[in-house]
Amino acid sequence: MKTIVQKYGGTSVGSIDRIQNVAKRIIKKKEAGHRIVVIVSAMGDNTDRLLDMANQISKNPPKREIDMLISTGEQVSIALLSMALQEMGHDAISLTGSQVGIKTVGGHTRSKISEIDDATLQKHLKDEKIVIVAGFQGVNEEKDITTLGRGGSDTSAVAIACKLQCPCEIYTDVDGIYSLDPRRYAPAKKLDAISYEEMLEMASLGAGVMHPRAVELAQKFNIPIIVASSLEEKPGTIIKESGNDMENTEITGLAIDNDDVMIDLDYVPHDIKITADIFDSLAKDQINIDMISQTSPHENNVNISFTVPKTELSEAKQLLQKICVKYPQIKMKINEDITKLSVVGIGMRSQSGVAGRIFVLLAKANVEVLMVTTSEIKISYAIRPSDQQKAVEIIASEYDL
Amino acid sequence: MKTIVQKYGGTSVGSIDRIQNVAKRIIKKKEAGHRIVVIVSAMGDNTDRLLDMANQISKNPPKREIDMLISTGEQVSIALLSMALQEMGHDAISLTGSQVGIKTVGGHTRSKISEIDDATLQKHLKDEKIVIVAGFQGVNEEKDITTLGRGGSDTSAVAIACKLQCPCEIYTDVDGIYSLDPRRYAPAKKLDAISYEEMLEMASLGAGVMHPRAVELAQKFNIPIIVASSLEEKPGTIIKESGNDMENTEITGLAIDNDDVMIDLDYVPHDIKITADIFDSLAKDQINIDMISQTSPHENNVNISFTVPKTELSEAKQLLQKICVKYPQIKMKINEDITKLSVVGIGMRSQSGVAGRIFVLLAKANVEVLMVTTSEIKISYAIRPSDQQKAVEIIASEYDL
Repeated sequence: MKTIVQKYGGTSVGSIDRIQNVAKRIIKKKEAGHRIVVIVSAMGDNTDRLLDMANQISKNPPKREIDMLISTGEQVSIALLSMALQEMGHDAISLTGSQVGIKTVGGHTRSKISEIDDATLQKHLKDEKIVIVAGFQGVNEEKDITTLGRGGSDTSAVAIACKLQCPCEIYTDVDGIYSLDPRRYAPAKKLDAISYEEMLEMASLGAGVMHPRAVELAQKFNIPIIVASSLEEKPGTIIKESGNDMENTEITGLAIDNDDVMIDLDYVPHDIKITADIFDSLAKDQINIDMISQTSPHENNVNISFTVPKTELSEAKQLLQKICVKYPQIKMKINEDITKLSVVGIGMRSQSGVAGRIFVLLAKANVEVLMVTTSEIKISYAIRPSDQQKAVEIIASEYDL
Repeated sequence: MKTIVQKYGGTSVGSIDRIQNVAKRIIKKKEAGHRIVVIVSAMGDNTDRLLDMANQISKNPPKREIDMLISTGEQVSIALLSMALQEMGHDAISLTGSQVGIKTVGGHTRSKISEIDDATLQKHLKDEKIVIVAGFQGVNEEKDITTLGRGGSDTSAVAIACKLQCPCEIYTDVDGIYSLDPRRYAPAKKLDAISYEEMLEMASLGAGVMHPRAVELAQKFNIPIIVASSLEEKPGTIIKESGNDMENTEITGLAIDNDDVMIDLDYVPHDIKITADIFDSLAKDQINIDMISQTSPHENNVNISFTVPKTELSEAKQLLQKICVKYPQIKMKINEDITKLSVVGIGMRSQSGVAGRIFVLLAKANVEVLMVTTSEIKISYAIRPSDQQKAVEIIASEYDL
């Protein structure tokens, strides 16, 4: 008998009706002859409701107590789902993160799973119980309840699947991973499969349904993740190792990010110490720098451009103004009006010239490229927001995304 | 430094404002130089809200999952109260029933505390932390979360006070124990002190603020309980061992119960086997019998009267109809129109004639007594509901209640 880990997100268990619907789906899988472990999130906006109470008490509530508070959300979901399954005649048992042996390390509200002691889990699976586990939570060495931060429930699910060496099905409110956001480009296609690496690039571009940490974990233990809809009965997208069975298309996905600004530093003296000084001062203040490009030296000066999140612009500006005082010849320009368009594809490794071909496409559509950066399986272009739609359309139609 | 256990009920922590108010009261006590352990219930109607969701899923939800579900209510309260205390600058830590070492035995939703492992509690008290404990809950041998049933949070508080050998303060929405319900008799007096035994009788008559199990536990370990208002700053009532410092008044309290009916069985053959048959058949179906009286035999027949809760009348009637078929000479009469009036006082032990003196009082007021039963420190009278008010007034005024 095969074991399967399933995860249902907050929307999927957002009401009693939906919990009952999830129970029916689990039973179908069980009756098809599987051992099942189900990870659930808190119901709908329950976590927000709890955090709102905490914020009425304190602007900065102690994080240990935040974890004590918000972990109740998942505990409510697992109890109700277990009741629904038992009411439908199936043996089930709910377990908190602590009870299921999810040990964590690191600070409260952003802990990391260090170990899973699966003795309890194995015992209940052996007894043919459907095991319902509270996602997003664990327990640390001091026996304190901890939570895993963003993407926490996905991470719980993948971690348990890794421990049990079985596939992990993530059920959510979309029906899979798309080559690009269908809200931006209606003909966008759902992917049947995507490699871990591509998914990681897409996820860190904000385009993925999955949080990068869950994908990384699955990649490490080579556990396939299936992302599918919790509302419809349709095959979703499988995230797995890239192999011979996957077409190594040049471009698998396209992501768009409007949350960055571009900073240009002109006339930077061509001296590695100065460049280091600039990026070091930004790093010390934990400014997130994404795209970086540097021109080749001209009259012993270089031009350095990079993007930072809009939310960190004012802090970055202050730091760079100090740099400009220190090196008065440097001129800073800020371009708040950019869109970052990234194409991701594992095929780029074996097929050269992708960046060039996309340049040609963009030129054909009169899209001005302000900056380009490349990595092994990703190329990012900074363009003007007004050019975004035509750029998306020409690339998507050329590469059949 | 003295340790004090305080307990705040659901109404007292029913909103963020009230939680902040409770935090202020705790700090006042702490600053007066005490080590403090606080037990809290779930906020207001939170438990009802959770049970309502469970009942939408099942008419008879599995009790283990009920405990998993409703124990979140107290967990929310402890986290928020700990946040409020820390926001006010005091070191505090919240602990679930499991974390504080409340071990239980017995079925889910009605577990009993078997042991408290107070190592964690002692450690945090030594560190001068205010320890906030989730009431009503514990953990059993299988590491399942359990709840303690009615009066559970009071029981948690008293049990911890017993372990720490310190007083237990119960803060609630009334300001103490009254000689009789002030809603029934406005001049009713708040008692400064009441003995465990009297409180137990009052509590089991439904007249007390405290659940009998918590009082029993305090009595066993001789821990004083103080019942007081969580909203006002007034001394409450102390529940303690009766001693020389307590006036052994004949009557400490008066309780009224309108939830029973009286069943008369006439012409019951004077044969202990038949009497046993009657009560045995009622006991087997778990009918709760309260007052029982039997007349002395007349022409070898006796009259047996007893009271049962209104809710159990139809079941009792069915069982007794079978008895009447078996022994056709027995005639059954049901009197649904009765009030049970009980007087409780530890002084009855040393002072004889209380029952007689009250009979005289009731006769003076033209109150017909339908049945009387007595115990060591309690006398209960079944009277007609229409006589209730004048009976209460004459007894309360005579005994200055």
